Amino acid sequence: MDRTEIASLGEFGLIDHLTQNNETKNASTILSVGDDAAVIDHFGRQTVISTDLLLEGIHFDLSYTPLKHLGYKSVVVNVSDIYAMNATPTQIVLSIGISNKFSVEALDEFYEGVYAACEKHNVDLIGGDTTSSQKGFVISITAIGEVAPDKYVKRSTAKVNDLICVSGDLGGAFLGLTILEREKKIFETTGAQPDLENQAYIVGRLLKPEARKDVIEYFAAQNIMPTSMMDISDGLSSELLHICKQSNVGCVIYEDKLPLNEDSKNFAYKLELDPTACALSGGEDYELLFTVSQTDFEKVSANNGLSIIGYITEDPATKTIITRGGNTHDLVAQGWNHLKK
Amino acid sequence: MDRTEIASLGEFGLIDHLTQNNETKNASTILSVGDDAAVIDHFGRQTVISTDLLLEGIHFDLSYTPLKHLGYKSVVVNVSDIYAMNATPTQIVLSIGISNKFSVEALDEFYEGVYAACEKHNVDLIGGDTTSSQKGFVISITAIGEVAPDKYVKRSTAKVNDLICVSGDLGGAFLGLTILEREKKIFETTGAQPDLENQAYIVGRLLKPEARKDVIEYFAAQNIMPTSMMDISDGLSSELLHICKQSNVGCVIYEDKLPLNEDSKNFAYKLELDPTACALSGGEDYELLFTVSQTDFEKVSANNGLSIIGYITEDPATKTIITRGGNTHDLVAQGWNHLKK
Repeated sequence: MDRTEIASLGEFGLIDHLTQNNETKNASTILSVGDDAAVIDHFGRQTVISTDLLLEGIHFDLSYTPLKHLGYKSVVVNVSDIYAMNATPTQIVLSIGISNKFSVEALDEFYEGVYAACEKHNVDLIGGDTTSSQKGFVISITAIGEVAPDKYVKRSTAKVNDLICVSGDLGGAFLGLTILEREKKIFETTGAQPDLENQAYIVGRLLKPEARKDVIEYFAAQNIMPTSMMDISDGLSSELLHICKQSNVGCVIYEDKLPLNEDSKNFAYKLELDPTACALSGGEDYELLFTVSQTDFEKVSANNGLSIIGYITEDPATKTIITRGGNTHDLVAQGWNHLKK
Repeated sequence: MDRTEIASLGEFGLIDHLTQNNETKNASTILSVGDDAAVIDHFGRQTVISTDLLLEGIHFDLSYTPLKHLGYKSVVVNVSDIYAMNATPTQIVLSIGISNKFSVEALDEFYEGVYAACEKHNVDLIGGDTTSSQKGFVISITAIGEVAPDKYVKRSTAKVNDLICVSGDLGGAFLGLTILEREKKIFETTGAQPDLENQAYIVGRLLKPEARKDVIEYFAAQNIMPTSMMDISDGLSSELLHICKQSNVGCVIYEDKLPLNEDSKNFAYKLELDPTACALSGGEDYELLFTVSQTDFEKVSANNGLSIIGYITEDPATKTIITRGGNTHDLVAQGWNHLKK
C-alpha cells in the first residue's frame, strides 16, 4: 500500500484532504469545516461552535508554563475563535488527559485558571471528560457561543477595496516564546537560573494572552459589521492568506502600518531579529484580523487599539507587502505549522 | 506544598472535586456538569452537548483495532451520550493529535469510519482541530444534539417503584477485549498468530459497538418517557449506582433478568469467568440503562430488545442484586476506572 507522509500535505492540506467529501445532512448546519467556528441554526438564533486540542510538548511546555496560566490560556484560545465569528461565547466543555505525575493540587491550579477565564468571558463550564494519559497533559476544549441571526462573520467574504485591520500588536507572543526557550536551554546546559531581562510584556503575551471580547463589543456599539474575520493564532501572513484564498481576492499591506509594541521591537533588535518578520509570522497573539468596508474607516480609526494595515485587491494571485523602503514583496505564510516540526 | 494523589479521589471523586465551585452564569445553561451531556436552551428548543477524549494506550490499542473501526467507534461513543439524554444527535466536532508514524492513508481509513458513523446517525462533521502529537493517537469528539423542550432525560430523576431496564445484552465487549488482550500477549511472547476462536460476536461488540438510535426512536414512537437514563460505558453496576446516587434512591436487580448473549455466556464459561460479573462490570457495551414508570411495563415488554432487570427502591443506602439462588448481595461498582490503572 502507498504511504503518503502527512508532512507532504501540511496541516491545511491534510484538513482539505480529510474533509473533501464531507457533506452536511442537517438543515441546521449553516456553516461547517473551514472557519474559526461552525454555525448551527437553532430555531432562528444561531449557535457558534469551535474546538481546540492542546498537547504538552507541542502546544505548551510545562517547564516554564504555570498551570494556572495554562488553564486560562486554554479557555482564551477557544473563546477567541468564537469572537472571531463576531459571536459571544456562552459555554465550554473541557476534557483533560493526565498522567499520574500530576497531583490534585496541580490540577486545582489549572482549573483556577480555567474558572478565571470563564468568569472573565462570562462562559459556563458545562461538561467534559477526564481520563488518564500514559504521557503528557492533553487538553481539549469546545466552545459554544451565540450570535444574532446572520451576524456571524466568515473568512470567505472579504470584498475588493475593503480595509484590512488588526487589533492590538503583533509578534509579542513569539518573542516571549523565544526568550523562554532560550533560557530553558541555558538552564538545561548550565543550570543557570533564567534571566527574563524584565521582559514582562512579551512573556505575558505568550503565557497570558487575552481574547478580544472588547473588540467585538466595540463592533456592536459602533454598528460595525466586519466583512471577514479570523483570530491570529498562526501568524498574520498565514491568516491573511487564508482570508484571501477563501474570499478569492488579493491584498496589499504596508510594513509601516504593522502594529508593534515598543518592548517587542526593542527585544527583537536585541536578538537581531526583524520585528516585521516577528509580526508577520509569529503566532499565538490571539489578536483579531478583519476586513471592513471603506465606509467604516472613521469608526475603525477612532479606536486606538485597532490598526488599518492595508486593503483587499482583486487579483487572487497577488498578495503583497510594501516595505518601508517602498519595495514590494510577496506575502508568504511561515506560520507555526506544527505538523512540519 | 501538600500532594494529593489523583488515584486517592478516583475519576468521579476528581470530577466532583474540580467542579464543586462551578457556577453557571448564562440563563441558557439548563443542565451542566454531571450527566451524559449538558443541555443548553436555544430560544425554546434545547441543545444537548457531550464530549469524549480517547487516548491510544488507554482507550484503544492499535495493535488489534482497525483504524476504520476506531473512527466509527469514536463517533458512536459520543452520539451514544446524546441518545442517553433522549435527544437526537445532529453535529460533531472532531479533533485529532497524530504522530508522524501515521500516513495519510491510515488517517483516510480512520475518517472512513468516522464518516460511516456520521452517515448512520445522520450527524454532520462540522469542525475540529488537527495537530501533531509527540506520541500516541489522540481523539477528541464533541457531539451536539437536539431535543424537544423538556424532553431530555437526566440521571437524577428515577422514582421509587420505577422499573429498571437495559437495551441489548451486556458483557460482550469486555469478553471481546479479554480475548484480544490474551491473543496479543501470546503473539508478543511466542509470535503465534491470533486465534480468535470464531468469537465474531464478542470481538465485534468491542470493536464495532453501535449507539442505540433505535431505542430512542422506539421511545418516541411508543410515547415512552424514561424517568432517568444513561449509557453503559463503565459497566452496569457503576452506571446504576450513578443513577441511584443522583436520584437519591436504592435499587433491586435480579441476576436471572440480566440480558446475556449465548456466545458471551459460553465464552465466559470457557475462560472460567462468571457471566454475571461480566454483565455487571464489563464496560463499553454502549447499551442504554433507563428507568420507566410501571405504567410503561407493557410498552417496554413488547420490545424484545429491551429487558426489565429490577426496580427502584426508597432507601438510598440499599443497592441490591438477588442471585439465581435467591441470595442477596450488595451491588458494587467495579467499572473500568481508568484513573486507578
